[in-house]
Amino acid sequence: MKKYSFMNDYSEIGHPRVLQALLDACKEQNKGYGLDKHSENAASLIKKKFSCPQADVHFLSGGTQTNMVGISYMLRPYEAVLCVGTGHINVHETGAIEASGHKIFTVKGREGKITCEEIISALRYHVDEHMVKIKTVYISNSTECGTIYSQKELKDIYDLCQKEGLYLFIDGARLSSALGSKDNDISCPFLASHCDMFYIGGTKIGLTSGEALVIVNESLKKDFRYQIKNKGAMLAKGFVLGVQFEEVFKDDLYFKMGEYENSLASYLQEELVKSGIKLANVSQTNQIFVIMEKTKIAKLNELYDFEKWADIDENHSSIRFVISFATPKEKVDELIQDIKNL
Amino acid sequence: MKKYSFMNDYSEIGHPRVLQALLDACKEQNKGYGLDKHSENAASLIKKKFSCPQADVHFLSGGTQTNMVGISYMLRPYEAVLCVGTGHINVHETGAIEASGHKIFTVKGREGKITCEEIISALRYHVDEHMVKIKTVYISNSTECGTIYSQKELKDIYDLCQKEGLYLFIDGARLSSALGSKDNDISCPFLASHCDMFYIGGTKIGLTSGEALVIVNESLKKDFRYQIKNKGAMLAKGFVLGVQFEEVFKDDLYFKMGEYENSLASYLQEELVKSGIKLANVSQTNQIFVIMEKTKIAKLNELYDFEKWADIDENHSSIRFVISFATPKEKVDELIQDIKNL
Amino acid sequence: MKKYSFMNDYSEIGHPRVLQALLDACKEQNKGYGLDKHSENAASLIKKKFSCPQADVHFLSGGTQTNMVGISYMLRPYEAVLCVGTGHINVHETGAIEASGHKIFTVKGREGKITCEEIISALRYHVDEHMVKIKTVYISNSTECGTIYSQKELKDIYDLCQKEGLYLFIDGARLSSALGSKDNDISCPFLASHCDMFYIGGTKIGLTSGEALVIVNESLKKDFRYQIKNKGAMLAKGFVLGVQFEEVFKDDLYFKMGEYENSLASYLQEELVKSGIKLANVSQTNQIFVIMEKTKIAKLNELYDFEKWADIDENHSSIRFVISFATPKEKVDELIQDIKNL
Amino acid sequence: MKKYSFMNDYSEIGHPRVLQALLDACKEQNKGYGLDKHSENAASLIKKKFSCPQADVHFLSGGTQTNMVGISYMLRPYEAVLCVGTGHINVHETGAIEASGHKIFTVKGREGKITCEEIISALRYHVDEHMVKIKTVYISNSTECGTIYSQKELKDIYDLCQKEGLYLFIDGARLSSALGSKDNDISCPFLASHCDMFYIGGTKIGLTSGEALVIVNESLKKDFRYQIKNKGAMLAKGFVLGVQFEEVFKDDLYFKMGEYENSLASYLQEELVKSGIKLANVSQTNQIFVIMEKTKIAKLNELYDFEKWADIDENHSSIRFVISFATPKEKVDELIQDIKNL
Repeated sequence: MKKYSFMNDYSEIGHPRVLQALLDACKEQNKGYGLDKHSENAASLIKKKFSCPQADVHFLSGGTQTNMVGISYMLRPYEAVLCVGTGHINVHETGAIEASGHKIFTVKGREGKITCEEIISALRYHVDEHMVKIKTVYISNSTECGTIYSQKELKDIYDLCQKEGLYLFIDGARLSSALGSKDNDISCPFLASHCDMFYIGGTKIGLTSGEALVIVNESLKKDFRYQIKNKGAMLAKGFVLGVQFEEVFKDDLYFKMGEYENSLASYLQEELVKSGIKLANVSQTNQIFVIMEKTKIAKLNELYDFEKWADIDENHSSIRFVISFATPKEKVDELIQDIKNL
Repeated sequence: MKKYSFMNDYSEIGHPRVLQALLDACKEQNKGYGLDKHSENAASLIKKKFSCPQADVHFLSGGTQTNMVGISYMLRPYEAVLCVGTGHINVHETGAIEASGHKIFTVKGREGKITCEEIISALRYHVDEHMVKIKTVYISNSTECGTIYSQKELKDIYDLCQKEGLYLFIDGARLSSALGSKDNDISCPFLASHCDMFYIGGTKIGLTSGEALVIVNESLKKDFRYQIKNKGAMLAKGFVLGVQFEEVFKDDLYFKMGEYENSLASYLQEELVKSGIKLANVSQTNQIFVIMEKTKIAKLNELYDFEKWADIDENHSSIRFVISFATPKEKVDELIQDIKNL
Repeated sequence: MKKYSFMNDYSEIGHPRVLQALLDACKEQNKGYGLDKHSENAASLIKKKFSCPQADVHFLSGGTQTNMVGISYMLRPYEAVLCVGTGHINVHETGAIEASGHKIFTVKGREGKITCEEIISALRYHVDEHMVKIKTVYISNSTECGTIYSQKELKDIYDLCQKEGLYLFIDGARLSSALGSKDNDISCPFLASHCDMFYIGGTKIGLTSGEALVIVNESLKKDFRYQIKNKGAMLAKGFVLGVQFEEVFKDDLYFKMGEYENSLASYLQEELVKSGIKLANVSQTNQIFVIMEKTKIAKLNELYDFEKWADIDENHSSIRFVISFATPKEKVDELIQDIKNL
Repeated sequence: MKKYSFMNDYSEIGHPRVLQALLDACKEQNKGYGLDKHSENAASLIKKKFSCPQADVHFLSGGTQTNMVGISYMLRPYEAVLCVGTGHINVHETGAIEASGHKIFTVKGREGKITCEEIISALRYHVDEHMVKIKTVYISNSTECGTIYSQKELKDIYDLCQKEGLYLFIDGARLSSALGSKDNDISCPFLASHCDMFYIGGTKIGLTSGEALVIVNESLKKDFRYQIKNKGAMLAKGFVLGVQFEEVFKDDLYFKMGEYENSLASYLQEELVKSGIKLANVSQTNQIFVIMEKTKIAKLNELYDFEKWADIDENHSSIRFVISFATPKEKVDELIQDIKNL
């Protein structure tokens, strides 16, 4: 029998409503390259939801691509992007940013989040033309550690960026999960008005693929479609993404999926803590990190797929369980029970 | 009322069977990044069809991306790719190859096709380290002019490449249409054994998106997945493409769609010639190029969407009609009638 | 005995006065990276001579480097540079511009020079985001064919660039020779006020190496030293170039060397024509192109080194003689006599 | 009166013998692009001294350029270079390596040197195609901290690289100083046989500019001149560097200059320690790092130029004195006395 997987939140093709929307539009003829009415409508829904009527919205295929296309647009050849060491662009994108010609300068961060002190210190460190010039701050919400930024944190960072002439780029590969966290106090309009560019991840929350890149800063809009094509990221059938974003934004399905997976993840985290399982760190979203004995991990792995995260000591490792929009509660209950029985 | 579009072959989301296959797999959990069983099975079907059991198959999102990922893998920084001036990589990809660091050197070509004489002459022109080194020949089948390579032409080019130490890359964005041409004498196995890398286009023939890059040359396989990720081209949900290629290759639907659109295009071409319409060039595939008076083109444009191709003289232009897998015969008949009535 | 070489204008280390200036400054301590008083003074002399007191001047090592550093600064990733097919950046720089990520789009040109019609036609050809965006026009003065731009030609091109929002970059690897041509009607101030960036070549006219890049357009100055360093082009001992440019600009030695080599080249060209030798094209500067029988070329090659330029027909080739600042008149006389005696 | 500068070892144009050699060769005609007899002879002398008759030697302009040209040649697009955080390529080259498309992965290092444990740990960290692939280890000798590698350290690192399929690149911008350290136990032949590529810095030891890149690994030689030109690093007058390297290698002047500056630096370090000055770290070469009160540093700065290195605490900073081939002993004595008198 096939093992159930808590490996990630992109194991299923997509939400049934999303697939149905594609099927419904199957016979239509649409204009190519994202210039169709579905993409236009999806963009409108997004701009309305985020209260940024002047923004430009572009639909791209995946997170690494969107980070690379967006960030490399912001930078001159000698400019660099700043992020925490655990940042996705720094660790898990096989040098895509560097392949576009730019250095990533890293600071340590705290629970996956960058601090204003670190930004200032990074700026002070770079004194002259023998070093790169930091121009963009990259953060992700939620972070690689499952944490989220608070309204105050985001405002402080953005204000600092504004003051220092930096761009703020928000990787929202798991934005649904971030905004759907019970700890979240950032509204959609607040987010959009506190950065220069952000994206709304679809791949990790029920779309077949797709990220909606939202350009808020007027000065970053010009010729952006050239940039997309130049990086091999323009889809002939852009409307395939348009139809899907339209579907999940027409009635907040996008956010409901995030709330669903978060609440289930939260339940899992609480139950495990109750059973005496130690957390690697407290998560606020749909990724739960626990520390277990390696022997128990091996046994659990016979029943479930999940990610091994890090070695803690000789006998312990941390592992990650991810809850997706499609995870049934009963699977989580089974998991909890099976862990208790180890 | 909305005009019917002969603009291109990627106006419709996908073939109903392809959409249904996605819907059927909707509840499954699959491994990420193309390591799932659908992608594996699709690769097997392709390798069987093309009789290249040792090949590596990777699924990517679109043509420009696939050209860039594949060609830039083949080249050292100072090496260049050779193609005809009308080549897609040269004209319609917004400098994506150059953005990966490489020069495109062009020759004139004949009906969109490169000749052995031109390859030799290009090699002879590049004499020392003050010029780029040509390492890859890029051709597309079918070409931008709707023409196809014959078995003899392909063999001659590949033999020459082998002799001169060049790689041969075949852009098969419209491979279905090329191989489904009534003039075609190239079998799938012949194609795969006469190049180093080629791709099987899906976006332009009934998939929601997707190109299957087939690496035949053993020396071009190493670490290719790193290259894909480095270029932002690795899909988390690789299985979305796997499912689709599986569907169209399990019973030759891929080729039947090409034959369908070709035969309809051929019918259109013949009927137009009969009515005295002049061809810009004789097409062998699903793109038909005709020359008409500008005033008539304007009138026709009130009824249909199509691409304006080139200015011929003060009063005439060439235009392009593309037949897709989804074009109904009655729309072609209407088009013919409407042209006659102009 | 060693053959005398008419191969190029960079066969000798440098003008004796230039070497002496280096020796004189040998014991000094200078600030690094071009921030020394010699570089400052050389920049002042140049800005005075070209009447562009607001310009920024940077000293770089060679032509290919200067073209790449300057042009890539001007362009966004999806933007391209336009030049004639014979342009040095297109043919003889091993893809350095493309390695910086940018396409070179070429037009035919006339006698090595671009025309306004060609610029307009190139702009009209590039219609949308599926093609690169032309942003910079590259010309060289003198050209690869030894010709020079007239005041009117330069003004027309620059006016057009201004109107169309293009930058004009002038490669002055042989600027001394261009401005020192007896046909020249462009003054230094005129040149500087009719482009956005140009450089004053030193390597080909008596310096050990070095090109002075002059940035006239205010908007192209920001952070340019970062660009230089980022491209590996910043010299620790920038003052080595500063001292040399100071020497050749303090009393017009720079221009006198150009006049000298031109007048000698002109004499050579006239004498050869008198003796019935056919020119490949009429040169206005220090490169002379003649057509001779291959058998005679072979014989001449036993006496002199020179560049074989192109095959004309089965029995004839064109060859190039270059006169340098150091070529003695008697060597030219010997050459003329030896050609007559062939 | 001008302050004497201990800022760096490239404040003077060059050693008098080097300048004289240029003057002596002033009237010669030489082949361009490093194909002249001086470059050939200099390469021979180097290969003999380092006992690597099969090596290829290329002469380049500066350190950043040489690092970028050499390292980017070694790497495929998704491959990275590993170095210590203080590595010159990581901190002081304005992202030149990243501009060539490659990530620099850093480890902490010890006194500016990388350890085998760190290399192993970096390799273990990079597990799959979602991360870059480490392919080259970069070290510099001497390091940015003035320390040098021992024979054993170098051998261990190289053996590990060999075992793990990594290239070892040695930045020898200050190789003269490293090999001329009284602590050094690495011979020239040992160095050349324990790496894949290294360079012999000239700019920081008496040449007007120039680094000799030595390619030891056979597999890294092919088409290297294309790479040089492609990166804008090929000098038309390559012989200007050839003449200089010939001069300093014909009788070990290269090494004598290093010994001279080291012994003077060593004397300075010892005298300062005797007077109770605290060292920031113990240097083995020509860069001396001391910690002083900020008020005293300010006073000293009225008398001398030197580099401020790092803030230690509220009242103390570290500063750097560099001794060059041209520093007279009396200036060092004056400096010592002036520090004592502060």
